[in-house]
Amino acid sequence: MYTVALHEWLKQQLPLVRAAEDRRPIGAQLTALIRNGILNGTLSPALRIPSSRMLATELGLARNTVVSVYEQLQMEGLLVAGHGSGTYICRVAREGVDTGPWRDAEGVSEPASAHTPLSLSARGKAYLHHPMHRYWRPQPFRGALMDASLFPHALWNRIQQQQMRLLDPLDLGEGDAGGLMALKRAIADHIRTARGVRCQPEQVVITDSTTESLELVARLLCDAGDTILLENPCYWAAAQTAADHGLHLTHCDVDEWGLPVPPSSEGLSAPRLVYLTPSNQFPLGNPMSVERRLEWIEYARAHGTVLIEDDYDSEYRFNGEPFPSLQGLDTTDHVVYLGTFSKTLYRGIRIAFIVAPPHLAQVFADASSDFYRDGDLLLQQVLAHFIREGHFATHIRRTRLEYAARREALAQALQQELADAMAAGRASISGGAAGVHLTLRFGAHVDDRALAARCEDMGVTTPPLSAYCLGNARMSGLVLSYAATPRESIAPLVVRIGALLREATR
Amino acid sequence: MYTVALHEWLKQQLPLVRAAEDRRPIGAQLTALIRNGILNGTLSPALRIPSSRMLATELGLARNTVVSVYEQLQMEGLLVAGHGSGTYICRVAREGVDTGPWRDAEGVSEPASAHTPLSLSARGKAYLHHPMHRYWRPQPFRGALMDASLFPHALWNRIQQQQMRLLDPLDLGEGDAGGLMALKRAIADHIRTARGVRCQPEQVVITDSTTESLELVARLLCDAGDTILLENPCYWAAAQTAADHGLHLTHCDVDEWGLPVPPSSEGLSAPRLVYLTPSNQFPLGNPMSVERRLEWIEYARAHGTVLIEDDYDSEYRFNGEPFPSLQGLDTTDHVVYLGTFSKTLYRGIRIAFIVAPPHLAQVFADASSDFYRDGDLLLQQVLAHFIREGHFATHIRRTRLEYAARREALAQALQQELADAMAAGRASISGGAAGVHLTLRFGAHVDDRALAARCEDMGVTTPPLSAYCLGNARMSGLVLSYAATPRESIAPLVVRIGALLREATR
Repeated sequence: MYTVALHEWLKQQLPLVRAAEDRRPIGAQLTALIRNGILNGTLSPALRIPSSRMLATELGLARNTVVSVYEQLQMEGLLVAGHGSGTYICRVAREGVDTGPWRDAEGVSEPASAHTPLSLSARGKAYLHHPMHRYWRPQPFRGALMDASLFPHALWNRIQQQQMRLLDPLDLGEGDAGGLMALKRAIADHIRTARGVRCQPEQVVITDSTTESLELVARLLCDAGDTILLENPCYWAAAQTAADHGLHLTHCDVDEWGLPVPPSSEGLSAPRLVYLTPSNQFPLGNPMSVERRLEWIEYARAHGTVLIEDDYDSEYRFNGEPFPSLQGLDTTDHVVYLGTFSKTLYRGIRIAFIVAPPHLAQVFADASSDFYRDGDLLLQQVLAHFIREGHFATHIRRTRLEYAARREALAQALQQELADAMAAGRASISGGAAGVHLTLRFGAHVDDRALAARCEDMGVTTPPLSAYCLGNARMSGLVLSYAATPRESIAPLVVRIGALLREATR
Repeated sequence: MYTVALHEWLKQQLPLVRAAEDRRPIGAQLTALIRNGILNGTLSPALRIPSSRMLATELGLARNTVVSVYEQLQMEGLLVAGHGSGTYICRVAREGVDTGPWRDAEGVSEPASAHTPLSLSARGKAYLHHPMHRYWRPQPFRGALMDASLFPHALWNRIQQQQMRLLDPLDLGEGDAGGLMALKRAIADHIRTARGVRCQPEQVVITDSTTESLELVARLLCDAGDTILLENPCYWAAAQTAADHGLHLTHCDVDEWGLPVPPSSEGLSAPRLVYLTPSNQFPLGNPMSVERRLEWIEYARAHGTVLIEDDYDSEYRFNGEPFPSLQGLDTTDHVVYLGTFSKTLYRGIRIAFIVAPPHLAQVFADASSDFYRDGDLLLQQVLAHFIREGHFATHIRRTRLEYAARREALAQALQQELADAMAAGRASISGGAAGVHLTLRFGAHVDDRALAARCEDMGVTTPPLSAYCLGNARMSGLVLSYAATPRESIAPLVVRIGALLREATR
């Protein structure tokens, strides 16, 4: 690049910029033009720039405009004022620097071949290669998704209008630590009766997601190197979150009554944390027996262990009423209860919650506010009202019937397609009394990942059971989440993968 | 407790429960009553329970109701069916178990004195005792808070109504991985011109908060034990988040041009991550010079280091236009850019974002969806519209004027109260050209924590600068965030703590 007198160069360039439908004010255009010229080396370092008066005259601009441009570039460190002798360009141009961040910002840069592009870390790569990573496509039977069309949008909207009128905008600014007290009260009242949770509103801490709830538990109750005991198979994002917070993962296979309590005679040190899904083991779908619950409470008390009760979808129980929570059985405050509304209202609603032990509630609330702020307070206000006026209970009741019908349709379709394999004990359905998924189980020799990949390619997302297994555990099956699939679509979808299923279980 | 025949006992108890304004269906009341009786030992294990027909007759209930109650309790593992000879109570009662989780769930349990209550972990305690932990009270000058009354609620509301009518409820269910594409597009367009960020919409990943953005970077690009280099002083929640994800924290004092680049001759291994606030160093308030930015880009390229650019409040620059971003200067994709709307719209809006390098954008989007879901899609739709129609730019322009006036009022009030100390160089104001806080600096001997505690007690929240310092660094000062304090209240509040400030700087 040749060096030119600044005003000559600008006289050439400025009309080009202006012609390029650049709608920024002329001052901003001029600043960008000089900035780019300096950065890409067109304008040489140590070049003295014309006085603002001269440049203004040359370009036909107001002098004030040019003064502002020079000031801006001085603040950016691109120009420097000499001692009483004008203003100079600084020595800043660098190889590999964008030659025109303002002119050509639309283009995504290709990493130059000479530079090694940034790569994922080992744990980032582990995530990338985790077998669950590919099952997020928006296809039928995909997990963690409710039917948003069953949500009473019009009603919700009316409540929101009402609350917006009532709410002082200033209240949107900040809430009580850990979320809006009105919502904490509504949640506490609801889970006391619906879930048998023992709690005061002060124990409820609002979070954005169950992952965030888990993170707070890991940050406040665990140190790097502490052990967490996981159910096997297990909700994979919980395991990954624990690992990413420095926890040492251990696991034990669940039996039909839930996660067994380690024998105390073994002399092993007790885990600091135990992650449990007592209402509906994820993904196998059995509830934990009361006997086992009581053993865990005794164990936690004896060893100072924290029990995480992830009560993710217990509102949906189809045979009988939902089991009361593990937390409600414990009088010694060793259970941290986690709930979420993304499994009862819709996936997009970013409200989950923690019920912390009373003596730890304040620090959980503070930490939630410090790290994640207090959440969307209007949304919290609307949800509080929705619960308090009974709409939440109505919604659960109504959707429970619909989800029960979908579950029935799915179970029937699977039984029909796999009648022979089921009769011969080569396939079975696990779970389904609660929650919104069924797990189809096969003998351990069936390659469920290959099968799931083929189903995925046929437009049906059925994550393989083995992907939820920790360590060397060998379980084979497919997890089918039916909540978001309309009732009448269920059987045809199962028929679509029927031949694949029969072939795999032959 | 004495053992009684079940039906006799129930005939006594059931009317009491019904009288206690228990609005649950009779079946649920009966289930809870028997469950509690079993758990607290009132009903002996191995007791044979009456047939459903007999109990129904005795209690005057439909037989079906009693059958359902028995089935529920069997599922819970509290009753067991004998072989052809009736149903029995299981041996499950345990000491220390709540005697009535359904009758007395309102009472918060006191940890029995014989049991050690759960305690915080070492890092939980470090958080609890962090000097910043006490500065969350909703008082004037508190940080991380904008003036929600300046937000155009009515306009936002209209857009929301409109979008709600247009949106298919099913679209609320799930979005594109990493957030709604319409919002990604709007953000990309905005930051390309307003912030000089080089990006395509696909590189934008929507998150709930900057903490969540940082967590994704730590989870995907770092392993436990990796080093992060932090600016000193530093945004404390960023440091804590990095530490909680297993990173090894190192730090270096910032100078007037920003964080110095480590000399390459030192032979020390380069950090994996560098956390930078180039637009407005937090909390000192200086922008990083262009020269320094270019040095960092060169360093990152040479060492394979990830630069995090936390551009938290760069939209608010009062002298001249905002500096273009560090990310826009980099052609080698070593910068991960973080932005947030909670500093421009209102604290409660839970929308922040990451601009990932192009080749890593998909895995960031996937991980965001896998761990934190896709966010509130209606909210994202409304924000996309708000930006695209120019309302966001208008809002920034309007509030920038108001915040500039508040900043001026604060600076003047401080200069007036501390005229002598400032003239003698014992106090000065740092920052203020951008962002929404000023930092009052004192000599290192001033005990800023004692001073801040006294201000806090007088109703003015001014976190001490030393609380943001890492290691043994000794900086003394107060951080005053003025955005949420009305203009006319600012001077009186400064006068209120004026004597304290003068005394401390004498």
